[in-house]
Amino acid sequence: MFREKIKVLDCTIRDGGLMNNHDFDPRFVREVYKALSEAGIDYMEIGYKNSRRLFNPKEYGKWKFCDDQDIDKVIEGIESKTRISVMVDVDRVDIDDVLPKKDSPVGMIRVATYVKDVDKAIFLANHFSDKGYETAVNIMAISRALDNELTECLKQLEDECKAKIINIVDSFGSLYQETTEFLIKKAKSILKTKEVGMHAHNNQQLAFSNTIEAIIHEANYVDTTIFGLGRAAGNCPTELILGFLKNPKYDIRPILDVISKEFVPLQKKIEWGYFIPYAITGILDEHPRSAIALRESDKKENYREFYEKLVGEVGE
Amino acid sequence: MFREKIKVLDCTIRDGGLMNNHDFDPRFVREVYKALSEAGIDYMEIGYKNSRRLFNPKEYGKWKFCDDQDIDKVIEGIESKTRISVMVDVDRVDIDDVLPKKDSPVGMIRVATYVKDVDKAIFLANHFSDKGYETAVNIMAISRALDNELTECLKQLEDECKAKIINIVDSFGSLYQETTEFLIKKAKSILKTKEVGMHAHNNQQLAFSNTIEAIIHEANYVDTTIFGLGRAAGNCPTELILGFLKNPKYDIRPILDVISKEFVPLQKKIEWGYFIPYAITGILDEHPRSAIALRESDKKENYREFYEKLVGEVGE
Repeated sequence: MFREKIKVLDCTIRDGGLMNNHDFDPRFVREVYKALSEAGIDYMEIGYKNSRRLFNPKEYGKWKFCDDQDIDKVIEGIESKTRISVMVDVDRVDIDDVLPKKDSPVGMIRVATYVKDVDKAIFLANHFSDKGYETAVNIMAISRALDNELTECLKQLEDECKAKIINIVDSFGSLYQETTEFLIKKAKSILKTKEVGMHAHNNQQLAFSNTIEAIIHEANYVDTTIFGLGRAAGNCPTELILGFLKNPKYDIRPILDVISKEFVPLQKKIEWGYFIPYAITGILDEHPRSAIALRESDKKENYREFYEKLVGEVGE
Repeated sequence: MFREKIKVLDCTIRDGGLMNNHDFDPRFVREVYKALSEAGIDYMEIGYKNSRRLFNPKEYGKWKFCDDQDIDKVIEGIESKTRISVMVDVDRVDIDDVLPKKDSPVGMIRVATYVKDVDKAIFLANHFSDKGYETAVNIMAISRALDNELTECLKQLEDECKAKIINIVDSFGSLYQETTEFLIKKAKSILKTKEVGMHAHNNQQLAFSNTIEAIIHEANYVDTTIFGLGRAAGNCPTELILGFLKNPKYDIRPILDVISKEFVPLQKKIEWGYFIPYAITGILDEHPRSAIALRESDKKENYREFYEKLVGEVGE
């Protein structure tokens, strides 16, 4: 018994890009697009639309900017119903870089924001909606949102924003299922005319279960990544969600194939997944940047010292 | 706000032993005991009590048999409130190998059984209870139990068995949280005079969340393993449950230390954790033995072929 309304958005290249400066080889990105298309995944998020005035193109790969012609090369000649999504961050996008929908391979634009920046996010989402795009707003760092401020943010989104989808983002991988339930129910109760989605991080091995929890409480959009690739501990694995959803339109086989052929070799180049420093930042509800820095240092296995340092900083 | 009744049983050496023929170096086992003792963990399960008439000691390590003198060497001189547990399998134990409790370092004996063998499990649990041990019964492969047979099994345990703890075992790592909730509620409704526990496997990255789910529905005993070490995908990580439980008697630091010093190096010798073949057997509710065999073969990354083979066999 499946729920037809549930849509899967695979953000492997976008979230995984946070681990390699968005510098995936176009061949690799094309293989991912092919696999997602064959698997019947609804959306593929391919990167960020960042301003070249703010970020030097020499320091980042193509998927930090997502030029339409780069996307065209990836998708060219592949039969697909998978829509392309790009993410924009508040204050980092040049809106004139974005052509009207009819002239672009992009189908959806998602605006990532903190609660405090929701006014800017609404401006951006409405602007892109007016250009013809399907739009969504991702509320980041939800575990740090104060309840009254989140309420106001959700009310504003319901009343003022043209985006049809609002995603709850557990940026730090710190949510347990009871809080996920609380947040999804709260969002559903205010966002009467919109869909609610879930973007989970896997610091505590709870990305998949929190995504299921969100589905149980009527979230219909779920973010996943192939083999869990994503920042630090990564995300809810696409292959697991396909095993869970019973919609016959999805096929897990192309995902298994691309994991064997592309992601197993990639593990030798990029580190992501369950590592103790990421678990620690998840437990402590902290941004993973300190854990990522630790893993890149010569103290990468000094877990106790790392824990004590973070605990010592709390409340400073 | 913690629930004082919740007890943690760390079965790292017992479940991890399924990946190396129970052949852990006594030095390593002693380091684990030391860490668990310092962390305030309630129980440490150190291995199986198997009959030497059924298993050749030349083919297995010490922790397949758990002689009292081997346990004594591990725990000697370490200050600890952690009780030692051993597991026995129905039909594989020689009950005369087990001395009365007063003459043994073992505190708890857990009897592992399938639903169909519950009569034998009750006989064993009662026998060991009469010898003075705390006892538990672990109902394995719960995802394959027919509801009426599970009901009868639980009623028999309630009425005839002296064991005070009955554990629900998700042997194949196939349960989602809704089924975990159903099973724990069912067990609690029949086992009025006993405690219920959860032993989860991590094939689908759900061991920790299913353990939390069991706790939410009043299970008070949870099985964990350090860094998730255990058969195939492993188990609910001890470090994550300590992050979740708020009981100040537990200290995560010694666990972080022993992971750095002992478990990170061990990963180079034994493979456990999230690998796609284990996810596939979890999704399909199959025993992981075929996936373990695949990982030991030269086709270890042929995930699609493995999936199609298993799907083809279903219903045969």
